[in-house]
Parts: sequence; structure tokens; C-alpha cells
Amino acid sequence: MIHTATLVHDDVLDNARVRRHKATVNAGWGNESSVLLGDFLFTHAFHLASTVDARACRLIGEATNRVCEGELQQISERGNLSLTEEAYLDIIDGKTAELTACCCRLGAIYSGAPPILVEGLARYGRFLGMAFQIADDLLDLVGEEQTTGKSLGTDVEQQKMTLPLIRLLRTSDVEVHSRLQQILADADNHKREKLQPYLAESDALTYARERAEEYSTRARRELASLPTSQCRDILEALTEQVIHRSC
Amino acid sequence: MIHTATLVHDDVLDNARVRRHKATVNAGWGNESSVLLGDFLFTHAFHLASTVDARACRLIGEATNRVCEGELQQISERGNLSLTEEAYLDIIDGKTAELTACCCRLGAIYSGAPPILVEGLARYGRFLGMAFQIADDLLDLVGEEQTTGKSLGTDVEQQKMTLPLIRLLRTSDVEVHSRLQQILADADNHKREKLQPYLAESDALTYARERAEEYSTRARRELASLPTSQCRDILEALTEQVIHRSC
Repeated sequence: MIHTATLVHDDVLDNARVRRHKATVNAGWGNESSVLLGDFLFTHAFHLASTVDARACRLIGEATNRVCEGELQQISERGNLSLTEEAYLDIIDGKTAELTACCCRLGAIYSGAPPILVEGLARYGRFLGMAFQIADDLLDLVGEEQTTGKSLGTDVEQQKMTLPLIRLLRTSDVEVHSRLQQILADADNHKREKLQPYLAESDALTYARERAEEYSTRARRELASLPTSQCRDILEALTEQVIHRSC
Repeated sequence: MIHTATLVHDDVLDNARVRRHKATVNAGWGNESSVLLGDFLFTHAFHLASTVDARACRLIGEATNRVCEGELQQISERGNLSLTEEAYLDIIDGKTAELTACCCRLGAIYSGAPPILVEGLARYGRFLGMAFQIADDLLDLVGEEQTTGKSLGTDVEQQKMTLPLIRLLRTSDVEVHSRLQQILADADNHKREKLQPYLAESDALTYARERAEEYSTRARRELASLPTSQCRDILEALTEQVIHRSC
């Protein structure tokens, strides 16, 4: 529910028209109702969590604070073409991986797992979130709207530096670097298309895919301490799905 | 903190530039950071409440849900010139009075008051909130921006029907009613000024002030069951302040 709340607000801020192959809330009902619906989802999530116990509220509250911080950090770094890979990883650790870690932690806690497994599953969730977000940022650059079912290219239009771009900029010679700068600074709406040839000629996409695979592998390794079961199989399958997806 | 969160989001939706005599968050930092900051305030409020207990989270969650519902209801009724006084009262009971009732309830609970006093103080908070909101809606129509320290006239520009307007429309003859309809439907930004002569010639402002006074009186009466104390004096003074204020 909290994830949905952030998506509803994200779609307002990105002026996105399509999400999950359907019209976004803002496309159908306008920005005001969308902001308020997002608020409702946030508070309703806490309301429901409070019917479990105060710890659930606290863990979700801590994680959601970090999610908002990560998103604010991302906005404040917008247009910063020198954003480092480390700073990018810290941003997605906040805005995405913190929440997936929290989900896995809560599942582990309320199924009565011992503390060592709770920590392992929280790490699994964090690595899974990192892999997911890197793959998601790749889709924003090279995915197809029809397959993903959502508005794409919004990161680059808003000058949000994601891993492929960071890699591309870092490995470009001076001339290409200055042409890339120009493309990213341009006010038109065709940044994504214009970047394609540069991405194709560099190792940026491969590099980002490899980083996503590394996180996926690290997530999978955390499952080793769990007894084999159908549930473990599902968690394992997820580590593949988050990186090999077109939607 | 939750009240502040709703104000930060309101100011984005109203495109308000001034609040509490200062630039709004959106005026200084843009809409994106404002939406995210509001989200942060919501979730941080629950995070802090969770350090008390699950009940605090639940009560705040229930109240905040109702606040969002009230605001959504208000939006869906925008432009409905036949909105009844009853429907208006129900909207402000949700978007404002539910939260003030919750604040007073929480204060009573955690000071160890017996259940009968908790309920009385919750009613006090609800009546206080109703009086406050009616007075606030009056200020939006007839207050001065310099004194209130916030952007005014946003209700009427957005065709949000508040008590003075509802009364004015209900008591107007056919001719005046149709002229009012025209003013409210106009796309210009001078609705507030144009309404002044009609408000001055009707009993609409007096009527709304009397309704605010009634709620203020009902709030004050709820304090009768409290022992006299400096705290009770403050709560009593508040019932006057919410209706006799220029800011």
C-alpha cells in the first residue's frame, strides 16, 4: 500500500499517463485527487499496521521516512551530471531497497523466524530492491512503453542520472561527453532517442545489467540459510524475475 | 505534524505562495519536493506515534483517513452550487474537526483521564474544529492577506462552496442567484472581489459567524465537567480565539 502511495504521487510529479497498462490516477482524476488518494493510502497503511502492533508501525515508519529521503535526495541531485555511482546507489538504497528490505523483515518477523533469519531476509530484500531498481532504470532508457505498460523516459527528461548514464558519462571522451551534456540540457522531449546511439556504442547498458545481476546474486545467496521449500523457490525465482523482465 | 503535512500538500494543490507570513514550501522548493516533504511528515508522524503505542497509531490513522476522505469529498463537490449546508458541515467535520477531535482525545487518553472525560474532550475538539473551519472559510472570503499571512480567495476561485456562499445562494432571489452563478463560473481571477457587494447586502457573513459561534459555545460547554485549572482556562480561551481572529 505504501509502495502504491509513492507510485500515485510519483505519477503526479512525472505527469505520467500510463501505469500497469492503465490510465494513471492523475490522468483519470486530476492531480488534486491523486495527491489526496496517495495521502489516504499512506495513512491507511499505518492504520492497518497499527492493528498488528506498534513495532510494525515503527518499522514501516522508519522505512518510509528513508524512502522519502531517498526521493528528496534524487530531486536535489537532478541535473548533476557528475553524480557518482556511489551516490546513485545510496539514493536507490533509500528510495527502493529500504522498502523491500522492510517488507521482507516484516514477513520474517511475523512468521516467527529467529533473529538471524530476520536479518538475512532483510538483506535479501535490500539486494532484491537494488537489483530491481537498476533494472527499472534500464527499462526507463531502453524499454518499450507497450510492454512495460508505463510512461518511459521520464528519468532522463528530468535529468535524473541513473546507472547507465553515469557509466556512459564517466567512460566517454571529452568530445562525446560534451555532446551528451548538450543532449541532457536540451529543453526538447527527445533526450531518450538521442541517447540511444551513444548507449549502443558504449558498455553502459551491459555494465548496468551486470551490476543488477550482482545484486540479484547477492540476494539469492541470502536464501541459502533457509530450508528448501516452495516459498524459498518463489523468493529465488524473484531474484531472476526482477532483472530479466520487460515490464 | 499531520496537520502540517496536509497544509504542505494543500499549498501545492492551491498553488499558494504565502503561509504563516512566509513563502510556502512549494514557492521555495517546487511541487515535487513539497509533495515528498508532505509524505515524509505523514510517515514521520506515525513513526513517532509508534514509539508511544499501537493505539496512538490507530487513532491517528483513523482520523487521518477521515481527513483525506473529507478533502476528497470537497474536491468531488467542487462547482456544485447546490451543495447543502448539511453536506458542507459533513465535509468540514471530516477534513478538519476529525483531526482536532483526535488531538484532544489523545491528550486526554495519555494524561490518564477517565473514559467519560476522554469522550467529552474529543467532542470539545470536534466542535472547536468546526468553529475554526467556518471562521477560516469566512477569512478566505473577507480576510486580508497581509493580516492572515496566507493566500486567500482560493476556495472561491476553485468553486469550493463554503458556508457564507451556501447561505448567500440559498437566500438570493432568482435574478441575483443567476448573477452569482455567472461570477462563480467565470474563468477570471476576481471572483472574491465581485462577490463582496452581494455578501455585504445579504445576511450570509452574519449567518456563518453565528454558526461558528454556536460551535464555539458547544465546545466551551464540554469543558464544564473539567475541574477549574489554568489548562481549562487555556482550552476555554481557544474557543474564543478560533472565531475572533484575523489570522
